[in-house]
Amino acid sequence: MISIAVDAMGGDNAPREIVHGAVLASKANPVRIFLVGDESTIKDELKQHDYSSDSLKIIHTPDSISMDESPKKAVVNKPNASVLVAASLVSNGKADALVSAGSTGSVVLSAAKHISRIPSVKRPAIATVYPTLNEFKRDDHLALMVDVGANVESSAKELVQFAIMGSTYVANVRGVKSPKAALLNMGEEETKGSEKMQTAYRMLKEVPSLNFSGNIEGKDILRGMVDVIVTEGFVGNIVIKTLEGTAMAASHLGKLAFRARFSWKMGLFFLRKGLRRIREVTDYAEYGGAPLLGFEKMVIIAHGRSSAKAVSNAIKLAGKSVRDKVCETMAQKIGELDVQPE
Amino acid sequence: MISIAVDAMGGDNAPREIVHGAVLASKANPVRIFLVGDESTIKDELKQHDYSSDSLKIIHTPDSISMDESPKKAVVNKPNASVLVAASLVSNGKADALVSAGSTGSVVLSAAKHISRIPSVKRPAIATVYPTLNEFKRDDHLALMVDVGANVESSAKELVQFAIMGSTYVANVRGVKSPKAALLNMGEEETKGSEKMQTAYRMLKEVPSLNFSGNIEGKDILRGMVDVIVTEGFVGNIVIKTLEGTAMAASHLGKLAFRARFSWKMGLFFLRKGLRRIREVTDYAEYGGAPLLGFEKMVIIAHGRSSAKAVSNAIKLAGKSVRDKVCETMAQKIGELDVQPE
Repeated sequence: MISIAVDAMGGDNAPREIVHGAVLASKANPVRIFLVGDESTIKDELKQHDYSSDSLKIIHTPDSISMDESPKKAVVNKPNASVLVAASLVSNGKADALVSAGSTGSVVLSAAKHISRIPSVKRPAIATVYPTLNEFKRDDHLALMVDVGANVESSAKELVQFAIMGSTYVANVRGVKSPKAALLNMGEEETKGSEKMQTAYRMLKEVPSLNFSGNIEGKDILRGMVDVIVTEGFVGNIVIKTLEGTAMAASHLGKLAFRARFSWKMGLFFLRKGLRRIREVTDYAEYGGAPLLGFEKMVIIAHGRSSAKAVSNAIKLAGKSVRDKVCETMAQKIGELDVQPE
Repeated sequence: MISIAVDAMGGDNAPREIVHGAVLASKANPVRIFLVGDESTIKDELKQHDYSSDSLKIIHTPDSISMDESPKKAVVNKPNASVLVAASLVSNGKADALVSAGSTGSVVLSAAKHISRIPSVKRPAIATVYPTLNEFKRDDHLALMVDVGANVESSAKELVQFAIMGSTYVANVRGVKSPKAALLNMGEEETKGSEKMQTAYRMLKEVPSLNFSGNIEGKDILRGMVDVIVTEGFVGNIVIKTLEGTAMAASHLGKLAFRARFSWKMGLFFLRKGLRRIREVTDYAEYGGAPLLGFEKMVIIAHGRSSAKAVSNAIKLAGKSVRDKVCETMAQKIGELDVQPE
């Protein structure tokens, strides 16, 4: 049976929504969940629910890392924090994957401390799914952007690894056949961007396992031309947060700018459910969180504001990744990568 | 009298909309306009309009650079192209500023060839205004982003220069008192981002003429917390194009996703003018184009699709910049910049 280690104390709504989400996931799928955190607190939360003690186990640890703590310091000073203990369950083989809604930094550093990386992957990357207009009628209306901030800068070779890992993830988890991958750049031509981007472009073209479709510009990110967008963490972080900010702004802008007009008011009234839906669609918690790519085991970072449903989705996603051997496939394709180390 | 050199042949709608825009601008303001391009074509267009031949002069040149030509090659091979001749009018003192709706690359390279840079500014930057939610009730609902793609990468010192030039522009042209400038980064803390970003942050803090408010994240770009956002061209280009893409997607998304629902259809019907307005608001041509900062004379790049109104706005903007001595003020503040050359 697949086992998932869940950081019960990480996130804005921990432990309540995490525990509730774990209960939901345990009922939906044949999966064993380790709830890592303060035992008495978790037990109190579990009292609210029907659950099977076969599929939900508590691993007690008194420490946890809060959302606003410095991840670097906390990971050093609190070796028994829930997210670190959960990561160690994965490294010692008790669990097959890690799920946490804790701060991104604490999850990345905890995973890095305990879980082995895929050989030749120096640093993991965070991938995020986001909704597209799907103008090109692909199988999936979602696309994946990687890296959105695990790193600041990455080498051309690392960008190629991101493309391979992202494509593997999308093919397996989202069921997209031969996913298209593109490099985010300031123009479509091969000669655009820095030397590093041009090198990455040339390397990406040569990878047999990739369906590389060239550079993509900012204006086309939402159109859904490709399944995987590859970029350095600095750029990916700013772009994905820009999209989040735009989604939040969408209804706001209408209201502020056109307050005086009756027809616009009516329009917003009729659209209010639709606007709420747009905000939901752009919240990646709905898709079960952001996978951290580059480890030999799957690590899912759920949104800090995750509801029970989002946590449940993240656990299901982790379970599916394990069943489909996503990390093993990534490792194999990364191994095939016929590029010289820098 | 202020003179503006206008590239009559640059842009998707040249020469018709350019000539028409010049006529409109010449009537609105006491300004002399040099229309640079093919004389007979321009004369044909001028026949459609009432205008004063005192304020509109034709400078004949048969060559021009099209929107899809390689700017690098064209600037070398066509020294008498309209945009280059217009730039030379500025360099030899006949005109005070340059306006072109030609391809960004051709305008940047033509200006670089003929017009002197402000001392110690190695490379110019493109600035773009964009609309914000103005949640913080600033004087102006627009903000300026610089650089959006004249360069791929820039040094920390150049980022400081961008902040100074952008702040000077916003203060003078948009009338914002003590404009707030921020550095686009992947987090708010001073320690976020690359070494270069951290160096830029430290340098920006120390510039007396700047109102530096720290780092800004992608999610806050549209909120209107600051007046000037400073970033390297690669990132700025991708972000501003992401915003353009989002604006185009806004109405689209609603229609596609919620086609079936009557109430949503009604909502979109009532909102259709509002949605069109949002698209207009995000088209920088409406604000008269993007200033190219770093030259001793003002250069305005109008949008390639500029209408006569947009061209007229760009010319008015150039005229205002000359009257308000914007470039002179920039040069003075850059000169005061007490930082060591790298």
